[in-house]
Amino acid sequence: MKIIVDALGGDYAPKEAVLGALDALELKKSLHVVLVGDQGLIRNELAGKTYDVARLEIVHAPEVISNDEVPTTAVKTKKESSIVKGLELLASDPDALGFVSAGSTGAVLVAAYMKLGRIKGVSRPALAPALPTLKGKPVILCDCGANVDCKPINLLHFAVMASAFSCAVTDTVKPIVGLLSNGAEDKKGNELNREAFELLKNSPYIEFKGNCEARDMLSGDFDVVVADGFNGNIALKSAEGTAGAIFSILMDGIKRGGLKAKLGALLLKPVLKDVKTRMDYNSQGGACFLGVNKVVVKAHGASKRKSICASILQARKLAKSGVVEKIRASVQSADEQE
Amino acid sequence: MKIIVDALGGDYAPKEAVLGALDALELKKSLHVVLVGDQGLIRNELAGKTYDVARLEIVHAPEVISNDEVPTTAVKTKKESSIVKGLELLASDPDALGFVSAGSTGAVLVAAYMKLGRIKGVSRPALAPALPTLKGKPVILCDCGANVDCKPINLLHFAVMASAFSCAVTDTVKPIVGLLSNGAEDKKGNELNREAFELLKNSPYIEFKGNCEARDMLSGDFDVVVADGFNGNIALKSAEGTAGAIFSILMDGIKRGGLKAKLGALLLKPVLKDVKTRMDYNSQGGACFLGVNKVVVKAHGASKRKSICASILQARKLAKSGVVEKIRASVQSADEQE
Repeated sequence: MKIIVDALGGDYAPKEAVLGALDALELKKSLHVVLVGDQGLIRNELAGKTYDVARLEIVHAPEVISNDEVPTTAVKTKKESSIVKGLELLASDPDALGFVSAGSTGAVLVAAYMKLGRIKGVSRPALAPALPTLKGKPVILCDCGANVDCKPINLLHFAVMASAFSCAVTDTVKPIVGLLSNGAEDKKGNELNREAFELLKNSPYIEFKGNCEARDMLSGDFDVVVADGFNGNIALKSAEGTAGAIFSILMDGIKRGGLKAKLGALLLKPVLKDVKTRMDYNSQGGACFLGVNKVVVKAHGASKRKSICASILQARKLAKSGVVEKIRASVQSADEQE
Repeated sequence: MKIIVDALGGDYAPKEAVLGALDALELKKSLHVVLVGDQGLIRNELAGKTYDVARLEIVHAPEVISNDEVPTTAVKTKKESSIVKGLELLASDPDALGFVSAGSTGAVLVAAYMKLGRIKGVSRPALAPALPTLKGKPVILCDCGANVDCKPINLLHFAVMASAFSCAVTDTVKPIVGLLSNGAEDKKGNELNREAFELLKNSPYIEFKGNCEARDMLSGDFDVVVADGFNGNIALKSAEGTAGAIFSILMDGIKRGGLKAKLGALLLKPVLKDVKTRMDYNSQGGACFLGVNKVVVKAHGASKRKSICASILQARKLAKSGVVEKIRASVQSADEQE
């Protein structure tokens, strides 16, 4: 199984991208990684490290697309960038089954769309992270930012794609789908949501449970939560910001709390660490770009080796599970029904 | 200062509403409270309690509007409900300056709009809670659910109103305004946001700092965060759900963690309690319904005596600060400029 990794994407590239790739190679002996990026920089990071050279390939791509650049322009002009070259390789190499990048989200989406193409029948590809829940199993939030203005039909496709994703990564057979809204009642929602609600309710291809309040997103009562990319992004980032704020106030309190608090924190360390790990959705990998013809995983921009490694393993798992084929089949069935 | 309290609103009414009112009377000796609700039930709760009878009045209103009812219908038909009678009293009694309810949000908004009227020039009244931030001072999120479909001009009015609110409850002179979006960059946002961005940027009546990612909402970098009611609700509820999930995982971990974890939790108790209090926005009061002609505070449905008391004190503070007059003046200035 060959996975391509953007060695220049993310705040801590190339170091953490390279280290994450080496960790993944160590964990999965059937894995083959292609690092795409500046050859000199990658070789520098590899110097002195022990790894199976037969399973690590380097493809030279010296250009970086930054977060400040307009994605469409950057993808068109920076042909030697790690994102563009990596996705071209994914499109052309039949052995390559997935791509992982912690670089510019916009550029990854645009390039993936252009180089891999959209799965037939999918109106809009969407970005879907797997988030932790109180019940342990993850919830797939789809879309979390690829499409800021949506039509109701897009949301139905998000539900179908994310359900296939959920089946692929968990042992769920019929994932429970919720529609992110401002209340759990059927009549809640803005104009878009109320129309999408009807489409979701009437689709025989998903298990629609109704509206999901943002408060219940992490409850574990839903396997999939569908949202337009703007709202999904807000739900995701608000959760992230709140978790960050809580840990920050907690650490500050421990610092100021004297010896008693410090001792308490020491005794409680394994529990606190577990809470932090469980709430850190990046530790489980990245967000999958659903609806294009191969597996693309967007890792968080602040990813360190652990998240990069998790994203590579996630891409491998997704590719192995045949998520792309599952989405293709589901969307086709849904289309035939319409 | 007379504040009217809905004694039948909320999951724990009338008990907690009555207890909260008594606590507020105890704390502020110039406060006068009118409890509106079923007279018999209220008297039952008051039995055996010590309070200044000269400062506590009861107005009989036996009907309850539940959360399941359609607000417009309920407000029109249930004329003997605590919400309708309470807001009628607020409108007609010049000494009454505020209304507090933990009842149906929809019914409170509809009745407040109908009975009190909109401040001239305000396109849409909006619901605005004061949320805790990392820097201590609160951030006003406006709107968090009153208007699920908005026009750009509504968002400008939300900014103006919430800025007046921020000045009224904190010592901020020029509140920093952010627009809730899917990224901090100027060009981010959906169609509505991109248009609202231009209006906000060009208004001389607010201090607009640009887009605010949901992740930064609680950072303390903004005094006001503007959103349409659908997005604001999602940001608020996602924050609430995440905080709840973290505390739930933490408590579970302590339970399972054996003696060591339990001792740690005991030593860390003051810090953990402080984190919980600081993150619990309900402990600071409720959400203010900005844009109507008197002060209306909507407390959380699950409010207990502490939150009801905080909401009554908040209504008192808002009325004292002249927030309604400040909004009237700001909106007028903004209108004249257009």
